Amino acid sequence: MTFVDKLKKAVNKNNSLLCVGLDPVNPPAPIESGPVGGPFFEFNKNIIDQTHTFVCAYKPNSAFYESKGIDGIRELKKTVDYIKSKYADIPIILDAKRGDIGNTNNGYVEYIYDYLCVDAVTLHPYLGKEALMPFLNRKDKGAIILCRTSNPGAGELQDLKTNNIPLYEHLAYKVAKEWDANNNCLLVVGATYPTELKRVREIVGNNIWFLVPGIGVQGGDVEKTVKSGQNNKGEGIIISASRSIIFADNPKDEAIKLKEEINKYRKPIDLMELKGTLKHKAIKEVY
Amino acid sequence: MTFVDKLKKAVNKNNSLLCVGLDPVNPPAPIESGPVGGPFFEFNKNIIDQTHTFVCAYKPNSAFYESKGIDGIRELKKTVDYIKSKYADIPIILDAKRGDIGNTNNGYVEYIYDYLCVDAVTLHPYLGKEALMPFLNRKDKGAIILCRTSNPGAGELQDLKTNNIPLYEHLAYKVAKEWDANNNCLLVVGATYPTELKRVREIVGNNIWFLVPGIGVQGGDVEKTVKSGQNNKGEGIIISASRSIIFADNPKDEAIKLKEEINKYRKPIDLMELKGTLKHKAIKEVY
Repeated sequence: MTFVDKLKKAVNKNNSLLCVGLDPVNPPAPIESGPVGGPFFEFNKNIIDQTHTFVCAYKPNSAFYESKGIDGIRELKKTVDYIKSKYADIPIILDAKRGDIGNTNNGYVEYIYDYLCVDAVTLHPYLGKEALMPFLNRKDKGAIILCRTSNPGAGELQDLKTNNIPLYEHLAYKVAKEWDANNNCLLVVGATYPTELKRVREIVGNNIWFLVPGIGVQGGDVEKTVKSGQNNKGEGIIISASRSIIFADNPKDEAIKLKEEINKYRKPIDLMELKGTLKHKAIKEVY
Repeated sequence: MTFVDKLKKAVNKNNSLLCVGLDPVNPPAPIESGPVGGPFFEFNKNIIDQTHTFVCAYKPNSAFYESKGIDGIRELKKTVDYIKSKYADIPIILDAKRGDIGNTNNGYVEYIYDYLCVDAVTLHPYLGKEALMPFLNRKDKGAIILCRTSNPGAGELQDLKTNNIPLYEHLAYKVAKEWDANNNCLLVVGATYPTELKRVREIVGNNIWFLVPGIGVQGGDVEKTVKSGQNNKGEGIIISASRSIIFADNPKDEAIKLKEEINKYRKPIDLMELKGTLKHKAIKEVY
């Protein structure tokens, strides 16, 4: 089963496009090893048990675990193992933003897919398709390429224009046309940039899924995000929220609320506009 | 002391621009924990003990350690601790190619600078300066930004042109003019692209150091690399080799040979050409 197949199953089962980011910080007790799990794991377990019927994916961000060294990574692995043993149908995205030369990427592939055993990973595009082949060759796993990120300064490089087309649009086109030979590529496009999100959807057509961070603390608007990012089936977006859910007084209620708000705007958008694929005029003139 | 100060001291002490990449693979025995160190650590220790008077830096690449999970990271930490205890004057670069949004980068900063305690780290530029501020704010540490990488497909995105200037040249200019407020930025430029290496040196002037991978197995030419990349003092480049040294029959001899070959070409290049800084004409027209 491919990552997107697994994802679609979870989307349908839970009727949800919501992904919860498992990004614990400042654990109440020191991180410790041992069979019962430390505070990061216990924190995550509580979130997962509360929300597993309302999400389409979980997304631990590696940085929060790495910050605690070996013990943090032990808790990351425990968290992944827990989801896989208790809620095996829910895909796990490791938000690790990796990307090295090809030979070195084999090491990351081994860590992410064979040691942690997650279903997908976020990746930097800067070294090009050739360097990412160890990830792209894994047909069973999702390669989620950073395209237009959610941070305030995202445009500094990503908006630089070649032939009047910004870098992130070139990249979206390249991923759809050239990198996605195994139908395992997704794109990261931030909810904080709904106009850019809409452009990327226009460029890549309906088949490519987006991981969309930036809802919640970062300020992305749910209505605009769903309307700009969804495909012609009212899906194609994984909307990720972390802090606004996991640090809420009641994470379950918060997850349900956000899931339902997302679903409110899930309806097919103008089919004429998205008929066929790769209809972006300026892009077509260049390639 | 800044990273570049520490680096220059090591360069002068050992009269070397050579950096040895500590990238063990296929250890002869299974990676195991314990006080005596596993095979990755023992492998590294042997390399370090043989080469420490001939290098200006060591560069473990995180991927090779992550591939073995927690035990691999334990060996990475042991390796770093060993260098710091036995050869404290030699700076350690973690080749980890990280880069996330600002809030998340704080976690990586904690891992890399406060847990592992290395002196510098390689970083992806795709999210822009704003996202990298947690790294750039660490005045005591080196932020080594990917600019023109050594892999065959590097040009796919890095050569896309804005106003006739490729992305990597824009980035080099930005780093020199805007990102380097704390004088702690370096650039990664591959030895496999001497023409691009020369361009980047022209753009940034003499003060910014480059980490130059791609010598050895990747095929970069030493003479061209040194002549293209060095600054007006015959330095400014950290030439990194991994496989060609660490898997040689005699790593010490190989390190000495490469160090001396590099030094053969260390002489001031045309001073007129590099007088002043930021003399790149096309760049000047744009900014």
